[in-house]
Amino acid sequence: MTPSRADCLAIDSRDPLAGLRERFTLPADVIYLDGNSLGALPRATAGLIAKAISGDWGEGLIRSWNDAHWVDLPQRVGQKIARLIGARAADVIACDSTSVNLFKVLAAALFIQQDDAPGRKTIVSERGNFPTDLYVAEGVCDMLNATTGGYRLHLVDDKDGLAAALADQPAVLMLTHIDYRSGSMHDMAAITALAHRHGALVIWDLAHSAGAMPLELDRCGADFAVGCGYKYLNGGPGAPAFVFVAGRHQQRARQPLSGWFGHASPFRFESGYRAANGISRFLSGTPQVLGMLALDAGVDTLLGAEPLGGLAALRAKSLALGDLFITLANAGPARDVMKLITPKDPRQRGSQVSFLADSSRIDGYAVMQALIERKVIGDYRDPDLLRFGMAPAYLRYVDVFDAVAILNDTIASRSWEEERFALRAEVT
Amino acid sequence: MTPSRADCLAIDSRDPLAGLRERFTLPADVIYLDGNSLGALPRATAGLIAKAISGDWGEGLIRSWNDAHWVDLPQRVGQKIARLIGARAADVIACDSTSVNLFKVLAAALFIQQDDAPGRKTIVSERGNFPTDLYVAEGVCDMLNATTGGYRLHLVDDKDGLAAALADQPAVLMLTHIDYRSGSMHDMAAITALAHRHGALVIWDLAHSAGAMPLELDRCGADFAVGCGYKYLNGGPGAPAFVFVAGRHQQRARQPLSGWFGHASPFRFESGYRAANGISRFLSGTPQVLGMLALDAGVDTLLGAEPLGGLAALRAKSLALGDLFITLANAGPARDVMKLITPKDPRQRGSQVSFLADSSRIDGYAVMQALIERKVIGDYRDPDLLRFGMAPAYLRYVDVFDAVAILNDTIASRSWEEERFALRAEVT
Repeated sequence: MTPSRADCLAIDSRDPLAGLRERFTLPADVIYLDGNSLGALPRATAGLIAKAISGDWGEGLIRSWNDAHWVDLPQRVGQKIARLIGARAADVIACDSTSVNLFKVLAAALFIQQDDAPGRKTIVSERGNFPTDLYVAEGVCDMLNATTGGYRLHLVDDKDGLAAALADQPAVLMLTHIDYRSGSMHDMAAITALAHRHGALVIWDLAHSAGAMPLELDRCGADFAVGCGYKYLNGGPGAPAFVFVAGRHQQRARQPLSGWFGHASPFRFESGYRAANGISRFLSGTPQVLGMLALDAGVDTLLGAEPLGGLAALRAKSLALGDLFITLANAGPARDVMKLITPKDPRQRGSQVSFLADSSRIDGYAVMQALIERKVIGDYRDPDLLRFGMAPAYLRYVDVFDAVAILNDTIASRSWEEERFALRAEVT
Repeated sequence: MTPSRADCLAIDSRDPLAGLRERFTLPADVIYLDGNSLGALPRATAGLIAKAISGDWGEGLIRSWNDAHWVDLPQRVGQKIARLIGARAADVIACDSTSVNLFKVLAAALFIQQDDAPGRKTIVSERGNFPTDLYVAEGVCDMLNATTGGYRLHLVDDKDGLAAALADQPAVLMLTHIDYRSGSMHDMAAITALAHRHGALVIWDLAHSAGAMPLELDRCGADFAVGCGYKYLNGGPGAPAFVFVAGRHQQRARQPLSGWFGHASPFRFESGYRAANGISRFLSGTPQVLGMLALDAGVDTLLGAEPLGGLAALRAKSLALGDLFITLANAGPARDVMKLITPKDPRQRGSQVSFLADSSRIDGYAVMQALIERKVIGDYRDPDLLRFGMAPAYLRYVDVFDAVAILNDTIASRSWEEERFALRAEVT
């Protein structure tokens, strides 16, 4: 029996995480199922940023680098993120973008392999990995190959391909923990162990997992990781990203974006580079203070869930919201025109549900536009993919009920056809 | 005859740029002579950021990438910066940090030379260049040398050294236009021409010049440039930086931080990298929206000076403020204990005046601390350097008068000795 709207309201009223939603500002008329692209606005952020601008910058001026502790924001925010990803406080730092940070850790991993196993020059990844990860890996190879060559990115299509590629003894395995399209999740512990057995270092991109579920980088033996500040960490558009480097690698790790904030003594203005001890050597230029403060507010908001059960409770809710979406979609006309591609097994599922539109029956892009027109915001990815994020920090069960009701109605009424007509008119 | 305080007030009352100061929020009790480290807060910034947070992020959510035009902020802000540095609108883009951007242009320049003149593998720079520039150049060489070697950073100490290094046919000359310590300025046109005669590509770091004076990158034939958003552009702490690439190089330029925003079609999610046309290929990851909006406000504030005479008027005022500082310091006890190291010749001077403290007579660090205690904010750089920035957008002649009066009084009264005592007490 599918849950009724009243059932959903009842579940919400018992939800131990319900209070967390109050720490966000959400538009009253919107059901937001795209927190996996851009997280919602924490209630604390606007005030903190206003104070930082008018007080710390406007009044404090240059003095605020010390007086307002801007100077160690990357370390302080990193230490908080460490609590969310199963890492030691000393092993995480917030800075730059995911793409730039991936460049750093790819180079660092390849430099380590160059010392330990000079023949290893291949980066293995999945063809379906988020494109920026693949593009950056190409850039790293391009630069390392400047004089002789041999570095390459090897893309695999599936698990068999992955196993075969690892058996060829690559230098690095670079994977995104949760697939941005399907929402399927890798077994971090098992894959890391397998890669290590083959002598590869492992880099995890946590873009779609950090903040949505408990992670255990240390327990899994991960070597490096990067992650995104603007999805489930709610750090705002283009928020700084983060880097994790396992303690065992830090003192030998070299990264080529060796800017002054990664120097052992940045304010001694020495002409030669000496890497800082520990994770700070993964910094590059001057930290982006405003973005870092917004990220800090986002992370604090999430850490506010710790007394309510923390990431384990968030994960349980995210899975329950996803199950509810799937159940309700299967009980209506959506069932006949959209195929679930997200694994149902919680051990293989991230924090979103994705459906492939049957393009012989519906126009997936037009359906998503029609939903957005009706204030249900998910997103569409070519070709034919409808993606709905289940951000457990601020989404209610009744939101999912209402969203799927509107989805089913949009399909039943074929109201999306008007949207398609409007869209086509725009193009021509 | 040295100007009196009344003279300075009279000059301020006639200053065509006086109104520009009203577009900034400055603390009432401070004389701020450190705009070369962190520019002051434009009056418009707080409101714009508040609206972006509460409205565009909080209400618009993911839709604001298009609806609030976040997606092309790097190009739009870059086009405005282009007007300040003598470049075509299509040749400048705002993104990342100065350090990260320098990595991109160094790699791009060396890749071009690899095609055109494969033997050229040396980057020439000055030992006194701002350290992050040197550190990043080391990182670039380190990575390019991964397999064979030959890339190196060659540092020179003076003009003779520079001429000799260029005669050795290096790949790249990388210079900061205005020295961060002495405030001395290179002749961009002459040095660029000299480097070109020797077949080197030229990268200019405009950290201490962009926004403080007219620049003519195109007329000088510069190949690449980077610059800082948080000094004279008033973009806020850790603001995004910018990149200039001469149009003639853009279509062949490759940069290895090849993130998705530099892709020809970022939202088609292709697995292989195809560089965007033009300057956009110098983007990497997702733009830092909050920082970019604050930078936009800072640049707009400066462009507001265009009807008042623009950069030429700002430059004239900056030089006049510097002359006034030097004259007044020379008329008091500062004369006997501090030696001007900034060139007096305006053709060789940036927008700051720097003095070397005579360490046998005063403790330069304690003097600067005593000045800051009395709300005159300059800065100190090891060893013995007192640095005073003349940000012409918001500094008044009377501010300089009062600052030097306090400086002379601090030295005459030896009040800095208490500061030194306090500092020593802190250390022990």
